Amino acid sequence: MTFPEIIGKKRDGESLTREEIARFVRGAGNGGLAGEQLAALLMAICIRGMTAEETAWLTEEMLQSGEMWHLADAVPEAVDKHSTGGIGDTVSLIFAPLMAAVGVPIAMMAGRGLGHSQGTLDKLEAIPGFRVGWDRGGMLDLLERCGAAVVAQTDDIAPADRTLYALRDITATVPSLPLIVGSIMSKKLALGAGTLSLDVKCGSGAFRKTLPEAKELAEALRSVARSAGVACEAVITEMDQPLGPALGTACEVRQAIEIIEGRGSAPLREVTLRLAEEALVLRGRDRTSARADLEKALDDGSAAVAWEAFVRAHCGNPDPDLLARPRRVVDVLAEGPGRLTAVDGEDLGRAAVEVGAGRRRLDEVIDYGGGIEVLVRLGDPIEPGQPLARVLLGERPVDEPAVIDKVREAFTLAHDAPEQPPLVYGTPELT
Amino acid sequence: MTFPEIIGKKRDGESLTREEIARFVRGAGNGGLAGEQLAALLMAICIRGMTAEETAWLTEEMLQSGEMWHLADAVPEAVDKHSTGGIGDTVSLIFAPLMAAVGVPIAMMAGRGLGHSQGTLDKLEAIPGFRVGWDRGGMLDLLERCGAAVVAQTDDIAPADRTLYALRDITATVPSLPLIVGSIMSKKLALGAGTLSLDVKCGSGAFRKTLPEAKELAEALRSVARSAGVACEAVITEMDQPLGPALGTACEVRQAIEIIEGRGSAPLREVTLRLAEEALVLRGRDRTSARADLEKALDDGSAAVAWEAFVRAHCGNPDPDLLARPRRVVDVLAEGPGRLTAVDGEDLGRAAVEVGAGRRRLDEVIDYGGGIEVLVRLGDPIEPGQPLARVLLGERPVDEPAVIDKVREAFTLAHDAPEQPPLVYGTPELT
Repeated sequence: MTFPEIIGKKRDGESLTREEIARFVRGAGNGGLAGEQLAALLMAICIRGMTAEETAWLTEEMLQSGEMWHLADAVPEAVDKHSTGGIGDTVSLIFAPLMAAVGVPIAMMAGRGLGHSQGTLDKLEAIPGFRVGWDRGGMLDLLERCGAAVVAQTDDIAPADRTLYALRDITATVPSLPLIVGSIMSKKLALGAGTLSLDVKCGSGAFRKTLPEAKELAEALRSVARSAGVACEAVITEMDQPLGPALGTACEVRQAIEIIEGRGSAPLREVTLRLAEEALVLRGRDRTSARADLEKALDDGSAAVAWEAFVRAHCGNPDPDLLARPRRVVDVLAEGPGRLTAVDGEDLGRAAVEVGAGRRRLDEVIDYGGGIEVLVRLGDPIEPGQPLARVLLGERPVDEPAVIDKVREAFTLAHDAPEQPPLVYGTPELT
Repeated sequence: MTFPEIIGKKRDGESLTREEIARFVRGAGNGGLAGEQLAALLMAICIRGMTAEETAWLTEEMLQSGEMWHLADAVPEAVDKHSTGGIGDTVSLIFAPLMAAVGVPIAMMAGRGLGHSQGTLDKLEAIPGFRVGWDRGGMLDLLERCGAAVVAQTDDIAPADRTLYALRDITATVPSLPLIVGSIMSKKLALGAGTLSLDVKCGSGAFRKTLPEAKELAEALRSVARSAGVACEAVITEMDQPLGPALGTACEVRQAIEIIEGRGSAPLREVTLRLAEEALVLRGRDRTSARADLEKALDDGSAAVAWEAFVRAHCGNPDPDLLARPRRVVDVLAEGPGRLTAVDGEDLGRAAVEVGAGRRRLDEVIDYGGGIEVLVRLGDPIEPGQPLARVLLGERPVDEPAVIDKVREAFTLAHDAPEQPPLVYGTPELT
């Protein structure tokens, strides 16, 4: 069968065989297929979908296109955590020392900022000296020394995903469920932790805008993980507004430290605790005592001790006074009175990228001083002139009036009080 | 709106605006869009379809991507003819001198062989000296001298179509109705004849396998032509088997000459007469007298005189003894008794390409001596050992047993007499 014939099968809504999917993924990984053919099949998959079986094969072939770290072979009790992507989402930075503090090894491979979201690696690199480039041996050494490791995904992990991800971005095939599942799970399985806690974002600022969509994604991700022998739970959480107030790099590190020290944004603390609780339950712990241990670790300073050890082990300096600060801060004020009924997370995220929290071009340098702080939450009554957000300006030259307008327009006020979404929808069964 | 957002609209089944379609076609014509983005949109169009309005815009934008010859401005009475593609389809070679013989100027832009089909240009170039490269002035001069012109489509005609056609071939997006209509009609409108007779093939050897599919294509093509002010009729004809027995280049020229001289394959003669008759009716002639004039021209030698003038005007030598002949001929014999119930036209066409009637690689040279002659038609009773087809072998080295097997397997025998498809289904209204 020729490759155009394989594309034609999916175009007509037929299922592909494992060997056909393998040819697709191999061709993406080694350049053996034209980008145009990959793009056509991606669009056919995006419109026609894939069965659970096809999705599992796609994931496995993408996984096998690169290196596998088999983490569970070396550290069977190690936990991994993943979020499907949102803004103000500083959970990973808190999750790592929190799990270490309660004695569970935590290992993650993280990425850089993409589109309107800020990347965990970019945030960690705002800490002076923090090093994210480690190989498998380096990760095991970090786990040995501080019980927590967050490293950059290497080029050898799921190389087919890198090709396909770049293609999806320019061909409007990002929102396809099987393609999202394949992309996420191939990388998770390449690290190979035995336990995985998944945060599936739901709302206007997420890939999946509605609860049924988020539930579908949560079930698909969990199902592929469990089929691969990973103990996995997925929690659906709200992304109609930033999870924590800070969007940026250094400012998100400060936000993480607040939570780690038992202070700070209640929603960010709550989502982190819930994901950590699920991880402990997956590792066999009783839910109530697990929750109590986690809260205690944040409140009694043991998470803060673990954070210092985590930063030092990664060659960073944990002194918070060394984190970059903005050179100037501009408050964005509300125009009319009303209640806050909607927040455009993509626009806010893009504004944060503009002022330094991300790269507008691949060769641009992050400005660790730049970012946004959101000062209101959905449902809040807003007075005219009340600050909605604070734009943190660093060294990068910025079209300031345009950014301020974009931030202001990201907030929608209305007279009626909106219905408040819950912060945590729960696991697919509970929603 | 970014181009991925335009792709996303079609992915979700929405209609595109004229300006969005224009960006797509311009990007294909000038290389301003990545091939991957064109491929993704082609697949979305292939699955989601296009409205009649979108299809007309697509055609017009493709037309305007290149040069337009405005033939009707110079020769208002000139007729064009097009077939959607089949095998043993030598109609164009007969149609040109036949129309010239009855005093109607006939002008066509033709292409080379593609995939399993043999190209009109390749057939004409089997005539020693025959020249197909002419510009607009050259075409007008040919019409002046012999009343008939068949020229190669130049690179300046609908350049966007060339890019998109090559992409469609490798991305399984060839069978899309709006893409077929845009590709065919942009080239027809670029020549700009005032009258167009369309042969829409229907059957196992055609793009459109069933009568409803063929009817849909016939109506769409005719509708775009008529909207552009062209007098147009479409006739649906059968392509469940080769139209004439010969598949090749020199052997198809010989087959054309037989018909032109009033002999030869009845189905090929009949389809040619019907398409010519429609053209004359479109030019205002009474159907019965038009038909009589056409038959007379084939039978009384006037078409043969016009053929000689046509070939000479194009710098060719009309002596049929100069046409290449095979070096060797192999008869393919039937194995069992039965009736001929199916012919795989694609396999037969590919076998003809193998033995020289086409190019297996872009740099390959046509072998004018090679080809296939089919000796049976659907419904014929077949005896064991009876010749089904004759493989004409020229100079090109060929895997002879493989070709013979492919030809034999292209014929399906069964005990029951199959239902015979009609040769001519008629115009969309009559089917």
